[in-house]
Amino acid sequence: MDYLQQSFNIIFDYRVYFTTALFDPANPLFNDFLLEKQVEGENRKILFLVDQNVANHHPDLLQTIKEYFSQHTSVELVTEIFLIPGGEIAKNDPAQFSRIVDAVNKYGIDRHSYIAAIGGGSILDLAGYAAAVSHRGIKHIRIPTTVLSQNDSGVGVKNGINYKGKKNFLGTFAPPLAVFNDYQFLTTLNNRDWRSGISEAIKVSLIKDKDFFEWIESNATKLVKREQPAMEYLIRRCADLHMKHIASGDPFESGSSRPLDFGHWSAHKLEQLTDFTVTHGEAVAMGIALDSLYSCLAGLLPSTDYERIIHLLKVLGFEVFHPMMEIEEENSPILMGLQEFQEHLGGQLTIMLLGAIGKGVEVHEINKEVLKAAGKRLKLI
Amino acid sequence: MDYLQQSFNIIFDYRVYFTTALFDPANPLFNDFLLEKQVEGENRKILFLVDQNVANHHPDLLQTIKEYFSQHTSVELVTEIFLIPGGEIAKNDPAQFSRIVDAVNKYGIDRHSYIAAIGGGSILDLAGYAAAVSHRGIKHIRIPTTVLSQNDSGVGVKNGINYKGKKNFLGTFAPPLAVFNDYQFLTTLNNRDWRSGISEAIKVSLIKDKDFFEWIESNATKLVKREQPAMEYLIRRCADLHMKHIASGDPFESGSSRPLDFGHWSAHKLEQLTDFTVTHGEAVAMGIALDSLYSCLAGLLPSTDYERIIHLLKVLGFEVFHPMMEIEEENSPILMGLQEFQEHLGGQLTIMLLGAIGKGVEVHEINKEVLKAAGKRLKLI
Repeated sequence: MDYLQQSFNIIFDYRVYFTTALFDPANPLFNDFLLEKQVEGENRKILFLVDQNVANHHPDLLQTIKEYFSQHTSVELVTEIFLIPGGEIAKNDPAQFSRIVDAVNKYGIDRHSYIAAIGGGSILDLAGYAAAVSHRGIKHIRIPTTVLSQNDSGVGVKNGINYKGKKNFLGTFAPPLAVFNDYQFLTTLNNRDWRSGISEAIKVSLIKDKDFFEWIESNATKLVKREQPAMEYLIRRCADLHMKHIASGDPFESGSSRPLDFGHWSAHKLEQLTDFTVTHGEAVAMGIALDSLYSCLAGLLPSTDYERIIHLLKVLGFEVFHPMMEIEEENSPILMGLQEFQEHLGGQLTIMLLGAIGKGVEVHEINKEVLKAAGKRLKLI
Repeated sequence: MDYLQQSFNIIFDYRVYFTTALFDPANPLFNDFLLEKQVEGENRKILFLVDQNVANHHPDLLQTIKEYFSQHTSVELVTEIFLIPGGEIAKNDPAQFSRIVDAVNKYGIDRHSYIAAIGGGSILDLAGYAAAVSHRGIKHIRIPTTVLSQNDSGVGVKNGINYKGKKNFLGTFAPPLAVFNDYQFLTTLNNRDWRSGISEAIKVSLIKDKDFFEWIESNATKLVKREQPAMEYLIRRCADLHMKHIASGDPFESGSSRPLDFGHWSAHKLEQLTDFTVTHGEAVAMGIALDSLYSCLAGLLPSTDYERIIHLLKVLGFEVFHPMMEIEEENSPILMGLQEFQEHLGGQLTIMLLGAIGKGVEVHEINKEVLKAAGKRLKLI
């Protein structure tokens, strides 16, 4: 057997910064970061993509960014700032991807320039993908604006868009250059979006960190009352758990396992079945309820633990059941979610369940009768 | 400054195998490789994409592949084998990309299945890109069929397609799962394609390995006479130099330098200006001539070395000049190549020149008058 062996190592590193009012002229964080990256003789550009929803809630944002870069000249701002429709449409509409690639072409954004995206998870996913494949990878800066994107999707290494209705069918693993979590954006979220992202914190606490789960229990009322310090703590701790998980595990998911996707197989499908009128976070809350009850009925999770989980979800105002989640028949649509989850990851079915609060357990089989019973019981809660 | 630091390491490794008649039922190499990757309980599929030009020269190939996998059952062959038009059209036509992604969808190719591409560099680039972005990365096996793809593009980590006429505007860095160089495919190459890939071997010898340059000088007649053992040696040694360069340098090109692109700034542009009627290898030969003469006129390269380079190119049957390479005006089209090269890489202009045979020298400036003079002189050779 005649062969040459290739082998090399790549180090990926980036920081997730926490701040308030990132583009306040008095806040030097962003400019200092860009200054540090500067290389003599290079004129770096920055192209901004902004979530239309965020721009609606912050009508001064575009002007504020322009003023920031007229005062701070670490990079050259591309004066045309692109507004991207918020939510899943950003990932469903191929024209949005083309708009970004065309902008890269039009404004000569090269591999030493930056694409910065401000918005919720969908915009960050789209922008990250367009950046990752333009010129084989333009440096990408994420500025997540929702609880969900600040504590979960925005701090990770994945991007993607949908293709013919299949979620994240096209995408890459491409770590950002940096992430800037600006807490000020949280203040204008509506109640649904404020609540939505809390489910990912519950999820990660359930599989990894009982103390954090108990912290959320103790602070649930503050979170409901929209007390900002409680939410800031939750985001930071949740982001930290996610990041540590990525770094210590299998960052580019070469195996079949995806432990962080507890509660997600049904959630992904539910979002799609409801045409994304149920948000990701809401769907995850229902997915957590379903998989916790399944874990309990399958004899893995003590029922007292299961009760605490449902109680917390309800105190926070989450629905724990959706009619689409009912499994009547072998071909119930939600069951397709199991198959699609397996197909996307590939290989053997691997589902994370719970052995206790704070302790995930992976299984490779789901008993459909038990799942059916779980769906029926959740309906009655 | 409040931040969380993320940091992790990814090891990339793959083998480049050298063989003859890969799909001969008696050749166990491919099947053994797939068996080694098998995981119990997983049913892995393999989707084949085949260069139409290769299929034309090897009319039995598709049938041979089908028979191979009916005897060797390490994976499940997707029985529809996709023929992709050969050459640059594969990268220019967005419909070819969509065809592959649609096939991934239609046949449920997941991240543990394989996409195998058989063909020249263009097909491998397209297939690698489609595989890299489908489900965030399907394992990709390359079976290069030309000298150029066996000794250079096929053994590296890049892929890409063109966008609105810009070469490799969309692409990623994504190492293959493995590369299988099957020498049998070389026997049916036409003389142009046989010769074409030799220029990349000359290039890498010029910047890295004087002994190899002298080997090519000594074996030039054998190469012209299409002696297979000489070509096999050239391919293996050239592939080895390329792979070592990638592993020891900056595999995903985070810097502005691209030492392997000696002679390439004008070559890329020339291909485009001639609508790809000049092949990549032919253009690289002309680019080597231009940049060697420039190196000489700029006082970097001894003229005896320059003479040897031109002599070798001519003995091998390469043209060293193309009318499009003439620089008459400040806005001569070939000069745009310098700017586009810089734009694609980003940052400071960095051009590899020669200090001697076997010794590359990077410069950050090109004197246009000297370049003009080089163009004029090459015309007279």
